[in-house]
Amino acid sequence: MNAIDSDFPVRPVPARNLPSSEFQTRMKRLVSLIRKRKLDAVLLTDELTNYYFTGLSSDNGLLTVTAEGPVYRTDFRYLVMAHRVAPWLTCRPLWIPSQEKDTLAALGRRWRRVGYEGSLSSIRYLAWKNALPQVEFADVRPLVTELRSVKSRAELRVIRRAVLLNDAIFQAAVSHLEKGETEWGLRTKIRGLMDCFGQGEAFDTIVCAGKNAAECHHEPDETPLRRGQSILIDMGVKVDHYCSDMTRTFFWGKPTKLYAELFRLVHEANRAAIAAIKPGVPCCEIDAVARGMIERAGYGKAFQHSLGHSFGLFIHELPGFASRCETKLKPGMVITVEPGIYLPGRIGIRIEDDILVTSTGCEVLTQTPHEVAAP
Amino acid sequence: MNAIDSDFPVRPVPARNLPSSEFQTRMKRLVSLIRKRKLDAVLLTDELTNYYFTGLSSDNGLLTVTAEGPVYRTDFRYLVMAHRVAPWLTCRPLWIPSQEKDTLAALGRRWRRVGYEGSLSSIRYLAWKNALPQVEFADVRPLVTELRSVKSRAELRVIRRAVLLNDAIFQAAVSHLEKGETEWGLRTKIRGLMDCFGQGEAFDTIVCAGKNAAECHHEPDETPLRRGQSILIDMGVKVDHYCSDMTRTFFWGKPTKLYAELFRLVHEANRAAIAAIKPGVPCCEIDAVARGMIERAGYGKAFQHSLGHSFGLFIHELPGFASRCETKLKPGMVITVEPGIYLPGRIGIRIEDDILVTSTGCEVLTQTPHEVAAP
Repeated sequence: MNAIDSDFPVRPVPARNLPSSEFQTRMKRLVSLIRKRKLDAVLLTDELTNYYFTGLSSDNGLLTVTAEGPVYRTDFRYLVMAHRVAPWLTCRPLWIPSQEKDTLAALGRRWRRVGYEGSLSSIRYLAWKNALPQVEFADVRPLVTELRSVKSRAELRVIRRAVLLNDAIFQAAVSHLEKGETEWGLRTKIRGLMDCFGQGEAFDTIVCAGKNAAECHHEPDETPLRRGQSILIDMGVKVDHYCSDMTRTFFWGKPTKLYAELFRLVHEANRAAIAAIKPGVPCCEIDAVARGMIERAGYGKAFQHSLGHSFGLFIHELPGFASRCETKLKPGMVITVEPGIYLPGRIGIRIEDDILVTSTGCEVLTQTPHEVAAP
Repeated sequence: MNAIDSDFPVRPVPARNLPSSEFQTRMKRLVSLIRKRKLDAVLLTDELTNYYFTGLSSDNGLLTVTAEGPVYRTDFRYLVMAHRVAPWLTCRPLWIPSQEKDTLAALGRRWRRVGYEGSLSSIRYLAWKNALPQVEFADVRPLVTELRSVKSRAELRVIRRAVLLNDAIFQAAVSHLEKGETEWGLRTKIRGLMDCFGQGEAFDTIVCAGKNAAECHHEPDETPLRRGQSILIDMGVKVDHYCSDMTRTFFWGKPTKLYAELFRLVHEANRAAIAAIKPGVPCCEIDAVARGMIERAGYGKAFQHSLGHSFGLFIHELPGFASRCETKLKPGMVITVEPGIYLPGRIGIRIEDDILVTSTGCEVLTQTPHEVAAP
């Protein structure tokens, strides 16, 4: 870690918010959707959804949005922050669950149709139903997903920075790879770099040596990284609240025949899927391009996860390149393409890029070459 | 960061699981509770609950427990890992939501009373109700909470290590405090140390300079740490899956009269609450000891959060020292005591210790003195 650190002297900086105009624009879109769908109110509770619309982060926030506008409710621990960070937004105190129930009952006396997020806990959902017995609740996650899935120019600027920083950290980590390093050790180095240059990991970094890569989401352990085996690294750094995501697999030393064959297949599946990406195409068709190639080569059972997922504030967003996802691609969506082949006890290979859907096709944001030069 | 790192050369190691006998014992207790409560099955989905009973971590796990024993279901990405980590446990594949519904419908044809966690998302809960229309669902979080709240000897050994490491990292970070350091910079240093010596943060480290501490859960920013102001640090490191948690506030330079007065009050409230802790006492009585003192001094409105919370695998567990928590203390519970006073725009003070309830009273696990010597 020290060796890598000293090559890149840096002063870590906290995440910055986009300008508050960005949040206000999103909120206006939500209010107009509420009117269009004839909802009396939308009640949002998910931390990232609330951040998306307000710029406020707290593990206890209730955002009530009606045609009159939004009110953010949170507890004593976050209220001073809320007033400071979002002066444009009405913020009110709300503390214990029973207060929430009484508050909703008082607010919603005339509500009939209310949007909520299906991710809400069942206990809280049942309490809301009880507080507002006349209300019909509609899951508005599809609405929120649709808004979040198309990134603004300002969001794309940040995401590009996150992707490029991820490239640079990967490069730094791999070029400093040393004999005796373990999966966990390399993961810790990568984490340290992400904390120094960005604001940490977008998800727990995956480092797998040899057959450990057959566990797609292997938790790094003390397995040593050594020559004569393949290494898989799946990593993403956060920059100003936005994620990036990349996987590379490389062979340290002279590749085996099996590795070379599977790598070529995964690489071709990745390229073919990306070549097919353009606005208007349903996500499942892109998934089918890569899956079909891997199936025809006889490895269908070795590739049982989706081809990719959107990302933004959260690492796994919708839509995704999945065999059942009918959503059509739109310019401004940012999605991963990550075919893989996993043979338990033997080997695992995955190649993952971050893709921006453009008006005519797509742009590969990830810059790291697929063929990684091992140290 | 480099200065601190080089003082403590270390090889980071991944989290170790407790012996599998520990998980099997917990599972046996759960099965016996199921029989006692006359439940046909318990369906668990929370990642940490499932880890508690199985030693398996995945973001997609369904643990079905009946009188015949447990079955863990997860998807392709985690199944190889599950077989490897918990060979004593039956593990089966389960992928998309519709499979879950069909699986439950087939499994539960004879079920009448089923336990589930109320934290389950409302959408999934409604799908389960639909798949098992004859079933009456009961929230078993109180059962699980009760099991988790009393720590075993093996758990206490790990928690003690996490608390002591937290003490050491705090000491290292504060003794290296330099002019020009920012809240975010110090937070990044602390995070780096936690990654090197433990397995990272138990929660986002809080560092507040001066009036920023009036935001109880202030997100560190670029405010410089300088002499002539108070500094609040709230931090916890994870060791082998278990958390620790400590807050210290200290004045860098000669304390102001206001600081000295409030610090004494918070310190006394902390001491008095801890002195009252013993088995059989309801949590709300401990909360009332500290709250009463702060209220009588005229600062009741400046202390609107709970006095403390249990912790273990997760940083916020139950029971907590809260004004409405009637749970009686038991030996083996591990709870924080963290009174605070927050005056927006002026100052914030909190002193937090980790407490183990013993058979005769309690033991303060945290070793860092309340009066921190600033550098």
